[in-house]
Amino acid sequence: MEIEMITGRIAQNLEHLKRYTSTPDAGCTRLPFTKETREAVDYLRKEMEEIGLEVKEDAAGNVYGILRGTDPTLPCVMTGSHIDSVLHGGNYDGIGGVVCSLEVARQIVEMGLEHKRDLVVIGFMDEEGMRFGTGYFGSGAILGHRNAEYTRQFSDINGVTIAEAMREYGLDPDKVEDAAWPEGSIGNFVEAHIEQGPVLDQKNIEIGLVTGIVGIQRYMVKVYGRADHAGTTPMDMRLDAADVAAKVISKIADWAREKADGTVATVGLIKVPNGGMNIVAEEVEFTVDIRSMNNDNINDIANRIKAALTRECKIMGGSFKIDTKLVITPVELSKSMLDKLETSCKTHGFSYMRMPSGAGHDSLEIGQQLPTVMVFVPSKDGRSHTPVEFSRYSDLAKASVLMTDLIADLLNK
Amino acid sequence: MEIEMITGRIAQNLEHLKRYTSTPDAGCTRLPFTKETREAVDYLRKEMEEIGLEVKEDAAGNVYGILRGTDPTLPCVMTGSHIDSVLHGGNYDGIGGVVCSLEVARQIVEMGLEHKRDLVVIGFMDEEGMRFGTGYFGSGAILGHRNAEYTRQFSDINGVTIAEAMREYGLDPDKVEDAAWPEGSIGNFVEAHIEQGPVLDQKNIEIGLVTGIVGIQRYMVKVYGRADHAGTTPMDMRLDAADVAAKVISKIADWAREKADGTVATVGLIKVPNGGMNIVAEEVEFTVDIRSMNNDNINDIANRIKAALTRECKIMGGSFKIDTKLVITPVELSKSMLDKLETSCKTHGFSYMRMPSGAGHDSLEIGQQLPTVMVFVPSKDGRSHTPVEFSRYSDLAKASVLMTDLIADLLNK
Repeated sequence: MEIEMITGRIAQNLEHLKRYTSTPDAGCTRLPFTKETREAVDYLRKEMEEIGLEVKEDAAGNVYGILRGTDPTLPCVMTGSHIDSVLHGGNYDGIGGVVCSLEVARQIVEMGLEHKRDLVVIGFMDEEGMRFGTGYFGSGAILGHRNAEYTRQFSDINGVTIAEAMREYGLDPDKVEDAAWPEGSIGNFVEAHIEQGPVLDQKNIEIGLVTGIVGIQRYMVKVYGRADHAGTTPMDMRLDAADVAAKVISKIADWAREKADGTVATVGLIKVPNGGMNIVAEEVEFTVDIRSMNNDNINDIANRIKAALTRECKIMGGSFKIDTKLVITPVELSKSMLDKLETSCKTHGFSYMRMPSGAGHDSLEIGQQLPTVMVFVPSKDGRSHTPVEFSRYSDLAKASVLMTDLIADLLNK
Repeated sequence: MEIEMITGRIAQNLEHLKRYTSTPDAGCTRLPFTKETREAVDYLRKEMEEIGLEVKEDAAGNVYGILRGTDPTLPCVMTGSHIDSVLHGGNYDGIGGVVCSLEVARQIVEMGLEHKRDLVVIGFMDEEGMRFGTGYFGSGAILGHRNAEYTRQFSDINGVTIAEAMREYGLDPDKVEDAAWPEGSIGNFVEAHIEQGPVLDQKNIEIGLVTGIVGIQRYMVKVYGRADHAGTTPMDMRLDAADVAAKVISKIADWAREKADGTVATVGLIKVPNGGMNIVAEEVEFTVDIRSMNNDNINDIANRIKAALTRECKIMGGSFKIDTKLVITPVELSKSMLDKLETSCKTHGFSYMRMPSGAGHDSLEIGQQLPTVMVFVPSKDGRSHTPVEFSRYSDLAKASVLMTDLIADLLNK
């Protein structure tokens, strides 16, 4: 049976690739511009060559293979994901998608499809941003968003800049702009990825068709009160920053729930600097992370937080400060490609659902400019960025089959 | 004018005593059983001798001076406070009360009062508990609550036990029980202390007549949820410990305000161990400190916290744990002595108010067993345990005058 054979090939690729980690027996650590990335890229080159692709590495460290079409004037169809991992991550995040895309090329070659457009299978350098505190390095570079200055702005915990790491890897950071593809040369982008959330696994659904990538706003909030003795200061003489902060924090998740459209809001960190059991809190810091496919919902929750802080601080005394840490607007993925993928799911009898992506991906970078689509496969218990991350090879195989249907169609459009 | 003279003597004593700190120019640091305490005790001995007291040091390191009365079979009247300070504390907390009590003896001697009972002026060792994480060492010892085993149980940050520190100071820890006074030998205890809160200063009142010392319950609460990706985990699949904790914390101060009887409740510490901006909180720790003169109010708030945690954890999933860190029941101070002090305030035209003490004191230890009363003087801006702690010498002088009236009366009862 076809799926079993494809599952076997994907298993072989991923079982091989999982060796390229700097933390054997403690998950996958494959940071950008390292020996482990070099080894993974060399393996991918060999696989691409066996399939019959024309293999290249670009000035940003991306590796890609081209299956030439008959009309070089047409925009290509590109498919891929990233080859790097986080520290002690899993063996599926990123690299699972690259292997799916490789498998698409294999299937296109096997079916002997005549096609006009080029098919490009790509493995991106540094999506996670783990080493340099950045991210989307390779996918940004093919769109012309990275330059030499950028490579000198960020460094890792040892003080090594991206530029230095690139040189060590054999690349010239001053030429990173050469990685940009000419405008109009990429027609579509298709990415498979693990969900990194619990929805598909919990609902026991094989495929997620990703309608878009949520927008994100992140804030660091500081509430300022006054440190007072917890025993000797009457309630009406206090400026209790913990009371103010808790009154606001206690509503944030409810505001997201109210939207009932997948909007999420998270307070992941709360701190009372210089606090003590017997001291009224002088200051409370907390973080807010709000995500939604509907940017108005994000803005609304952010505004409600500001209004609640203003109100509570006015009642209590005290003050607050909000630092904006991140603002990303939602990206809608290609409706026509989603429809095509849905039809394929039905044809093959794969269970599926449409869903947004709550995490960022190379498709977030690329989808802002080009028609892009993503396919999710279930993550066991929703876990990722951990050695226990697990997705089924058979689900990745199903994703590759759907992508092959879509891409075979696009290659002759 | 009398008050001016007394103010001058108190100023002289305190200006002298503030030199005995191990952190000159950074507040008073006079930890128990140190050189600085020895110096302060030697100075107090000299002052006591000048007044004509019979000076002693007991097996716990307390220093005291006796003004003998005519009937040695009657219980004595004891007055004093503590000689130690916190790290980088102020020049008034504790020692201000000792100096007031010294001044009471001076005034009794000056007025040439014939009296039946002994007057005992005492400076207690280690009320703060700063060095060994304990407290009320000297006042506990005179009641027979300290023994040799206790002195070996606690040690300072250098690993020095109370026993070792006592030996270094010239005391034998195995004899600490010798510091206990025979039952019935102390008739009354009178203590002056700085308020350590903002009430008197804010209301511009000279004297606080302390009706009691509040009970305290302290809890460490841990709420357990589940760590999930803040982007990919829908709201209805989360066990968000921060949401649960905030919903509970946001009500605690309100419950205390509702009581409107001086009950206070404080969440002074909140932590999200292993938290991150983009991770749903797996665990939140927070502390609760509840104080009231009405023990039912303390129990009621503690019970409401437990009920709210149970309710929110049930709605959300997750669980919680409450560790009881401290339970102290309220101590009522002597009504008859308070009435006498109030009469004196009126006679002298001092502004005063009755108020509870929200902080613990040697009187908390002693007041559980013996008729005890406290007089507070205002703390500027309610600040204490800091080098900026400030109380007026003239307010301490007024306290000493009130105490003299009371004690002169008691000495012949």
